[in-house]
Amino acid sequence: MGKLLCGVDIGGTKLSTALITESGEIIDKCIECDHVDKPECLMVDQITYTINRLLRHNGLQEADLLGIGIGCAGHIRFRDGVIITTSNLKGYKNYPLRGAVQAKFQIPVFLDNDANAQAFGEFKFGAGKGFDSMVFLTISTGIGAGIIINHKLYRGMTGTAGEFGHTIVEPDSRLTCTCGNRGCLMACACGMALPHLFRQKTEAGMTCTLDLPPSFDFGSVDGKLLKQGLDQEDPLSMEIILDSARYVGIGIYNIFQALNPPLIVLGGGLMSWGNFYLNRLKKHFMIMPGIWSLILFQSLFQR
Amino acid sequence: MGKLLCGVDIGGTKLSTALITESGEIIDKCIECDHVDKPECLMVDQITYTINRLLRHNGLQEADLLGIGIGCAGHIRFRDGVIITTSNLKGYKNYPLRGAVQAKFQIPVFLDNDANAQAFGEFKFGAGKGFDSMVFLTISTGIGAGIIINHKLYRGMTGTAGEFGHTIVEPDSRLTCTCGNRGCLMACACGMALPHLFRQKTEAGMTCTLDLPPSFDFGSVDGKLLKQGLDQEDPLSMEIILDSARYVGIGIYNIFQALNPPLIVLGGGLMSWGNFYLNRLKKHFMIMPGIWSLILFQSLFQR
Repeated sequence: MGKLLCGVDIGGTKLSTALITESGEIIDKCIECDHVDKPECLMVDQITYTINRLLRHNGLQEADLLGIGIGCAGHIRFRDGVIITTSNLKGYKNYPLRGAVQAKFQIPVFLDNDANAQAFGEFKFGAGKGFDSMVFLTISTGIGAGIIINHKLYRGMTGTAGEFGHTIVEPDSRLTCTCGNRGCLMACACGMALPHLFRQKTEAGMTCTLDLPPSFDFGSVDGKLLKQGLDQEDPLSMEIILDSARYVGIGIYNIFQALNPPLIVLGGGLMSWGNFYLNRLKKHFMIMPGIWSLILFQSLFQR
Repeated sequence: MGKLLCGVDIGGTKLSTALITESGEIIDKCIECDHVDKPECLMVDQITYTINRLLRHNGLQEADLLGIGIGCAGHIRFRDGVIITTSNLKGYKNYPLRGAVQAKFQIPVFLDNDANAQAFGEFKFGAGKGFDSMVFLTISTGIGAGIIINHKLYRGMTGTAGEFGHTIVEPDSRLTCTCGNRGCLMACACGMALPHLFRQKTEAGMTCTLDLPPSFDFGSVDGKLLKQGLDQEDPLSMEIILDSARYVGIGIYNIFQALNPPLIVLGGGLMSWGNFYLNRLKKHFMIMPGIWSLILFQSLFQR
């Protein structure tokens, strides 16, 4: 067996670590959910411990790895491995995560934006295999994207290219994004927007047939609850899903006009809304003039 | 003197032809305004005739040129030199303009989208000199852009990358774009939108202090009339200019989020609205979080 790679995904809910072959096959993985409230140094310890445990468990040593790649949500400066800001974790302002993990290992360590990392994964091993260029769009707690141009990640000047979630698509919207602006794509259509959308429609008197507790906390509305609503044909849940699909359809159309990519791959938690969501999204932007040649795939790792 | 280049810009109003040194200096030029209603073959004759006349007039021959570069508004397929569609001229659906001009000359002929051509001009000789990457945004009859990534034009899959004018920024807008969609950036803020904006504000009862004829045709409203209004401090003209600046500010912000370029160069006829327009545009997007490192220049060829 050739050397292996180690991938670490620092999410807002899960910390996922995996050993992978150079052809993209996952050998072993570990998913933890107790990392979110830890300070930076304890997170570094956790990542180090988990990687070493995975190695031991598979009878491997650090020298059997080619390197470690870490993906993290937020604005990441790739060239020096610094988290500029992230909204998923507390702290981490200008935190040099790559250097901190590198201090624990001899093999090279890389840090990139999670959407960039996932984009490259899809490009090398997933739905983007065989394409020269593509955009990966993740619709999840937030909305982010990674851009591949001619086999390489395009990161832009400071490394934050592909932040389509922060493009403004509804300037007079009442929905405020975590960035402070109104009407960002994220403010209208991502997981973080769902509590606000649910409250707005409830207050507007829309019928909800979900069995909610009397002291229901709107803050707890998430993609899973709406999936449940969709399965039970709850009108309110279905309308929120359709509204979100409209905005993501516009976002995809705008990506097409800006970058004219041959392929856009869709991933992220809200894709679990399935065909009801995806069909509306496609219907919304495929009828717009100009989209005659774009291919749309779902992430190969989430199907 | 080394060999020269010949540039041809096919606009909706002007057909401009120039002889240029390899360092970007214009040796001689010719501007004509009688090309718009000509059928394709007569336009090819006019371009050929004008180039040959410029050569003769300067005591030059075709062999003194390295090549001919033609820029044209619309969707252009660069690799085979075909105009897919253009809204500035009648006809020209899938017209192989490059081949038609090439048949008249021995030296190489190129055809590209006009915003791409202007972007490359600014990059080589203008406001983008010294940068590796940049975006050129033209705010004119329409709105278009050219993207330079690592010293090369980025054209996308079919050659239509950079169509930021067709990104949707106001989905519920009553303003329809020439592409058929509502709320494209172009529909809200370019020269073609001005008659609609002028009519809307007049019908809403807004005061206009411009001295307009009794049988005023809203279709004749253009950037020049509003410039006149601006100079005379006409409230209606000033409000349209500020509204346009807001949308272009959003467009520039969205370009920044999508591509994270180090530089955006602004050009096009509506830049003649000057600092009143530009300051509002900058004010609108520079206060948005995230724009901490973007440089904004005006076209060096229009100042």
